[in-house]
Amino acid sequence: MADKQFDLVVVGGGPGGYVAVIRAAQLGMNAALVEREHLGGICLNWGCIPTKALLRSSEINHLLHNLGDYGFSAGDVSFDLGRIVKRSRKVAGQLSRGVAHLLRKNKVTVIDGAGRLAGRGRVAVDKDGQEADTLAAPHIVLATGARARSLPNLEPDGKAVWSYKEAMVPEAIPESLLVIGSGAIGIEFASFYRNLGVPVTVVEVLDRILPAEDPEISDFALKAFRKQGMTLMTGARVTEVSDGKASVLAADGETVTVDADRTILAVGITGNVEGLGLEGTGVEVEAGHVVVDEWLRTGEPGVHAIGDLVGPPWLAHKASHEGVLCVEKIAGLEGLHPLDKGAIPGCTYCRPQIASIGYSEPAAKEAGYEVRVGRFPYVGNGKAIALGEPEGLVKTVFDAATGELLGAHMVGAEVTELIQGYAIARNLEATEAELMHTVFPHPTLSEAMHESVLDAYGRAIHF
Amino acid sequence: MADKQFDLVVVGGGPGGYVAVIRAAQLGMNAALVEREHLGGICLNWGCIPTKALLRSSEINHLLHNLGDYGFSAGDVSFDLGRIVKRSRKVAGQLSRGVAHLLRKNKVTVIDGAGRLAGRGRVAVDKDGQEADTLAAPHIVLATGARARSLPNLEPDGKAVWSYKEAMVPEAIPESLLVIGSGAIGIEFASFYRNLGVPVTVVEVLDRILPAEDPEISDFALKAFRKQGMTLMTGARVTEVSDGKASVLAADGETVTVDADRTILAVGITGNVEGLGLEGTGVEVEAGHVVVDEWLRTGEPGVHAIGDLVGPPWLAHKASHEGVLCVEKIAGLEGLHPLDKGAIPGCTYCRPQIASIGYSEPAAKEAGYEVRVGRFPYVGNGKAIALGEPEGLVKTVFDAATGELLGAHMVGAEVTELIQGYAIARNLEATEAELMHTVFPHPTLSEAMHESVLDAYGRAIHF
Repeated sequence: MADKQFDLVVVGGGPGGYVAVIRAAQLGMNAALVEREHLGGICLNWGCIPTKALLRSSEINHLLHNLGDYGFSAGDVSFDLGRIVKRSRKVAGQLSRGVAHLLRKNKVTVIDGAGRLAGRGRVAVDKDGQEADTLAAPHIVLATGARARSLPNLEPDGKAVWSYKEAMVPEAIPESLLVIGSGAIGIEFASFYRNLGVPVTVVEVLDRILPAEDPEISDFALKAFRKQGMTLMTGARVTEVSDGKASVLAADGETVTVDADRTILAVGITGNVEGLGLEGTGVEVEAGHVVVDEWLRTGEPGVHAIGDLVGPPWLAHKASHEGVLCVEKIAGLEGLHPLDKGAIPGCTYCRPQIASIGYSEPAAKEAGYEVRVGRFPYVGNGKAIALGEPEGLVKTVFDAATGELLGAHMVGAEVTELIQGYAIARNLEATEAELMHTVFPHPTLSEAMHESVLDAYGRAIHF
Repeated sequence: MADKQFDLVVVGGGPGGYVAVIRAAQLGMNAALVEREHLGGICLNWGCIPTKALLRSSEINHLLHNLGDYGFSAGDVSFDLGRIVKRSRKVAGQLSRGVAHLLRKNKVTVIDGAGRLAGRGRVAVDKDGQEADTLAAPHIVLATGARARSLPNLEPDGKAVWSYKEAMVPEAIPESLLVIGSGAIGIEFASFYRNLGVPVTVVEVLDRILPAEDPEISDFALKAFRKQGMTLMTGARVTEVSDGKASVLAADGETVTVDADRTILAVGITGNVEGLGLEGTGVEVEAGHVVVDEWLRTGEPGVHAIGDLVGPPWLAHKASHEGVLCVEKIAGLEGLHPLDKGAIPGCTYCRPQIASIGYSEPAAKEAGYEVRVGRFPYVGNGKAIALGEPEGLVKTVFDAATGELLGAHMVGAEVTELIQGYAIARNLEATEAELMHTVFPHPTLSEAMHESVLDAYGRAIHF
């Protein structure tokens, strides 16, 4: 069987891979994409997208139980979990078909199967356990993503202990839910189920929830979730789960028992480095991730890697940007800049939402900056009051010496849509003066972004 | 009666005046604010803020009639108009009291009454038709705002013909509504009442609705509103309103009769220049507005004017920024820049929302630019699909020669919160390359902002 010839082959069709291969096609390359399961990857099929559809429904449930605040009443409010899940699957299916359409439109060859390196410049494609195809290309991009970690004493069984996948397609509402891990994924599921009325316990091994966020945001979120009736334990470990109960070793050394009709494991992810044919190549693997340079090149000539496979931050938009950058570098485009990891925003779509970019206050200090910090609460924002969403905080961190915006940290309604303004600012190396001079429209939540900057310099108007 | 001495006196406590006087106090001035009615002005009491509260309720009504889409059901959905209005008034009251608190906190002297110039460096304050106070200050800032225009043949009577004020506190849902004028105010009321189920006709004298927007956005909005069952007539004039009916001279020369149980006049505003004691001073008035230079100075030494009083764009955030700029200039701060009117965003909070900044495509061409235009529809955005909000469009206009972002024009869910990203970009004179390089978080509506930029340069991924 002769190798099929391409200019570029991408292995893995998630938000890193499919974006990379479309960009390659735009740049005139004859490009192929090898995908073993669903176009769109985890993000689109079992991650970002279907969870947003679920969270939308769960927020509606919250609203329906607070209709009186807005002058409405309704009898017999109920939801059909099957329909909520079905809607989420439909959204994922629609977008996955959309990716297939985009690939066709860009004349990308899509090959069904699991790709692996098979000698310099070659990719073998296995299907049903057999080698079904071989491809040759001077440029290969590995984008096989990552998968959920397990705990040594706890593996998802799909019944009482769920991975993200089962958590997304529940057949019934759990009587109680234990979420292990309080990163973005854990907190989103906790929020989804809590909004639907489920008693939820979150156990985090570190000393605060959402440990990737600025500590003030973690603290704000903790209080907000507790007000919603969630139980959150930090500095704690789940030692056993059985028969609908879990034992948790709390921070004070006591062991407590919590209800856990269902348990969701959300303790991080690890790169899909296995079965990729990396053995005997120059591709290095460290701590479960492929090592790359600033242009996403591995140690093996012609082999690149992008996205979750190359490590944190594990974010779809980071994968997509790496895909574009990697391919543009291969194509020899001029004027490219390596991706600045400090300019990649992160979002958690819980209620209230969380979004951030750049240095947290402690991280900035640790990096040696003298900082100026601004804060503005939603309760001082007219739109937040008009919406009935007064719970929120915008924190900004500036370099005291230069006025450069080092980081921004937000919690509150719609912050996942707001953070892009700070991303643009970070990317343009904006200073406090430029942000103060910017006119934010009234009345919007985004005015809190302006006021937070003003506050860092003692000029806030509305607080 | 001796004049009370101040460093600065502001006449008018709306979003221009109260912000200006707080900034003056922050800069160490002994400052007074004269307000004849409500702190916060029209914006806070009878404009931006209470309408947002009303619109929030009306959007909930829309959602309640589409619950099935999200997996929910509810019986006997109903609303209590009195409670919707009461909530809106409560929000306005809360924020107005908030302004009073901010003024106290900043040690501003607040004087109840109508201020007017009374000789160089003097302001007289009238109350109940009598001069109650006289103030002296080297710096006076006029910020008396504007009021709604009437039509020659149609005056609001508060019963069948409403100004914005009556439209905001209806005692009953109109059987039918005629809105005259399709600018931001007219369209917001049309959207509010239509969301509550009222048959609505909008009559616009110009050849398209939302005439301040890019024509493609006007067109998109027109189609969206028509799909919602609104009747919109352009190039048309209302010739008579009586007994719940209106005669409209349509664009084709035919006269048609439309239902108009209530009519809202929203045909623009005119500055409150009367009774300000401008006669005999160097303050010039042109077409109902006070003439100022780039630092908000009138022709009379020591007298400044800001906000709606000095003309379009009639926007609260423009007034606030002018207030700050004017006062900082008075205080002698260094490094100030005059306000760039092309960098002031405008928002309309209808459904779908509308927001824009800078040059429309035709305006850019008229100004002599060769343009590159990008477009991205919400239907290509994963978050829009997940939210169930696929109706939207982001249009960007670039200078083909330099790549500078000249303008951005948006319609769709949450665009009033998104536009600030482009405002930051405009203010930093961002080019297409910098915007393309910016990482927008996934999955967000804001990714459509990125894709629109990519599209202008033939690089959009998701369409």
